[in-house]
Amino acid sequence: MLKSFIEVDADSHFPIQNLPYGAYETEQGEIHLCSAIGEYIIDLFALDEEGLFDGPVLNNQYAFQDSTLNYFMSLGKSAWTEARETLQSLLYANNETLRDDALLRQRVFKKRDDVRLVMPVQIGDYTDFYSSEQHARNVGSMFRDPDNALLPNWKHLPVGYHGRASSIVLSGTDIHRPKGQTKPDNTDQPIFGPSQKLDFELEMGFLTGSGNKLGHNIPVQEAEDHIFGLVLVNDWSARDIQKWEYQPLGPFLAKSWATSVSPWIITMEALEPFRTVCPQQDHKPLDYLNQPDRTTFDIQLDVFLKTENQSKPHRICSTNFKHLYWTMAQQLAHQTVSGCNVKPGDLYASGTISGPEADSYGSMLELTRNGTHPLTLPSGEGRSFLEDGDEVIMSGFAQGEGFKVGFGEVTGKILPAIK
Amino acid sequence: MLKSFIEVDADSHFPIQNLPYGAYETEQGEIHLCSAIGEYIIDLFALDEEGLFDGPVLNNQYAFQDSTLNYFMSLGKSAWTEARETLQSLLYANNETLRDDALLRQRVFKKRDDVRLVMPVQIGDYTDFYSSEQHARNVGSMFRDPDNALLPNWKHLPVGYHGRASSIVLSGTDIHRPKGQTKPDNTDQPIFGPSQKLDFELEMGFLTGSGNKLGHNIPVQEAEDHIFGLVLVNDWSARDIQKWEYQPLGPFLAKSWATSVSPWIITMEALEPFRTVCPQQDHKPLDYLNQPDRTTFDIQLDVFLKTENQSKPHRICSTNFKHLYWTMAQQLAHQTVSGCNVKPGDLYASGTISGPEADSYGSMLELTRNGTHPLTLPSGEGRSFLEDGDEVIMSGFAQGEGFKVGFGEVTGKILPAIK
Repeated sequence: MLKSFIEVDADSHFPIQNLPYGAYETEQGEIHLCSAIGEYIIDLFALDEEGLFDGPVLNNQYAFQDSTLNYFMSLGKSAWTEARETLQSLLYANNETLRDDALLRQRVFKKRDDVRLVMPVQIGDYTDFYSSEQHARNVGSMFRDPDNALLPNWKHLPVGYHGRASSIVLSGTDIHRPKGQTKPDNTDQPIFGPSQKLDFELEMGFLTGSGNKLGHNIPVQEAEDHIFGLVLVNDWSARDIQKWEYQPLGPFLAKSWATSVSPWIITMEALEPFRTVCPQQDHKPLDYLNQPDRTTFDIQLDVFLKTENQSKPHRICSTNFKHLYWTMAQQLAHQTVSGCNVKPGDLYASGTISGPEADSYGSMLELTRNGTHPLTLPSGEGRSFLEDGDEVIMSGFAQGEGFKVGFGEVTGKILPAIK
Repeated sequence: MLKSFIEVDADSHFPIQNLPYGAYETEQGEIHLCSAIGEYIIDLFALDEEGLFDGPVLNNQYAFQDSTLNYFMSLGKSAWTEARETLQSLLYANNETLRDDALLRQRVFKKRDDVRLVMPVQIGDYTDFYSSEQHARNVGSMFRDPDNALLPNWKHLPVGYHGRASSIVLSGTDIHRPKGQTKPDNTDQPIFGPSQKLDFELEMGFLTGSGNKLGHNIPVQEAEDHIFGLVLVNDWSARDIQKWEYQPLGPFLAKSWATSVSPWIITMEALEPFRTVCPQQDHKPLDYLNQPDRTTFDIQLDVFLKTENQSKPHRICSTNFKHLYWTMAQQLAHQTVSGCNVKPGDLYASGTISGPEADSYGSMLELTRNGTHPLTLPSGEGRSFLEDGDEVIMSGFAQGEGFKVGFGEVTGKILPAIK
């Protein structure tokens, strides 16, 4: 097994097999790109300045001296592979370059707990898909017709919609309860006030690296090569606002007030060992979506809720990325088939990921059946939807033999609506 | 009446009363911000470099030495007012600074026909509203129920959805026909191919300048101060793709393959003389949308179609911005009421603008009643929807006494789908 001169716990999300990408604020207030290993972040600016990214693609590109990853992402897969090989090599137990240079080590490694991570990517556009069959069935059963829970198009194309990019925030950002217009069933006229049905949505999202030109498309069999990596996504939702506003043009304010993402981008290469089979597609899709050897990734996902009266987070959902009906390659092929151009740093979220069991549903809406079956927490409190002071913590990892490739967490705490 | 030392035709869209903002590519291949007067563009980079923006807000800000307007827009209304006053003053008939400096004039003025205009703003997020009552009624009647053409929420809030920012292109960009998945009524299974119901949508859009912090909102009575200016928008649409994909999350690929905007941003100050009354709102909206003295702008809008067999564009629609039911201030107050943050350079389009008469509908869908009543063009050709080779030209202006404040045009030609 690969081993670094940096000691890494078997339970750590960040062994040498991971090497995710992020960004942090230095003591001088500058933004530096970074990676992570064990308890440390790795300052990529410092490594780049030392000329250590000296492979044929990255040499003299200064790709890690930018304040966002967008340029590096735009360089495409050969650059990503080279950067990963360079980094792994520099961290190997028997490589002296970093290991035996105390001054350089001091510049490059900082305790992860001591630094403030920031958004590593400028996200241009944000698409949110709806690719979990169980989630679409749960929602369709509650709001439309249990006998026809899936709409006719659902198995023919990965349904999705455009989200709001400006309100994507990094894990740890406090979230104010949104206000908005709703129409309770027992009133004639709509009313205004803080949302009464505040929810999380457990999702994952991929970020595109190299894109396509307007008018052209990315074929499904090439789509994975355009995907740089994945993050955890909490697509906060206001169910009562959504219900009143969403016809006929889809969710708008219900989803645009905040979307939280985890700080580390886990690369496709780090996830490669965790490929697994997909759910069978019972309708053969049209050619542009047809991917004969569909695989996905085995990524364990958990959601924890911590109220102000609890000392510890309590797990309320446990599911897996592999349950999604549509693959990322199918999503990206669909997104671009009309000629829509994607750019480096665009975010494509999966939609809520719900598994087959009742404790594997990825939203309060589903876990509590629209609030009719509140959760009971260890503190004795009940929860139909999220209340002020509640913190939602999502975590994800893939389990290797003796190591984990993890996403860390995406967290967010609900604060009262601003007056 | 204000007069410049530059001669301006009474029919010109760009007299000294307008002074819009744009950007162009210099002979050296650099992007410079610019304004326009008569037949000329005004190089703002050159004026800024000469230190001529020397008012208290803009002095030493180098706001016009950037390659986009975003920084200038972020400075807020006092900066916009000051820049306009400076520009107008420099152009006055009796001001010698520019008028009598032949060298400087040569640097600053270029023939508009000789330069290539480029996108002057980096657009972060793009929202598309649905604020024309006539349009919503026309569409609702065709696709849902003529007796209940408006959905219950329509008069209570400005319905809108998120659009795709990456595919916003400047006027003059050729547009490839999109391909996609559709399900004709006479088939069991969806099919794939070039859209057969290609349409334009006549819209206007406003660009926000200074924004708001996430979690906070922009009150309706302050909203106009956050609006920098307006452009013409052609929100190209594929009706057949839309029909099959749009439930339950709204239009997605049907609209994301191209949106064309006019190159000049017309400021709110230039439009100020053209305020006029709004359509009455027959439901008093909730307080956050209530704007006691609602006004809008009297802007004449025309759509022309030029097929390959015609020598001249033929007008197919004539309408007015003033028909919109919801004002821009109400749209922006709604967009932010949940705490969604807007940023400098975001685009907010009105939705298709249709007037009360049958020749004032802003889309082929409405003009031809979903293709059942094709238009007959002077060449004798019929048109249900747009065909390859068709060019759509939209134009807009406000009529003053002896002058126009115009938007110029937004044009786009349909090319065949890429194989």
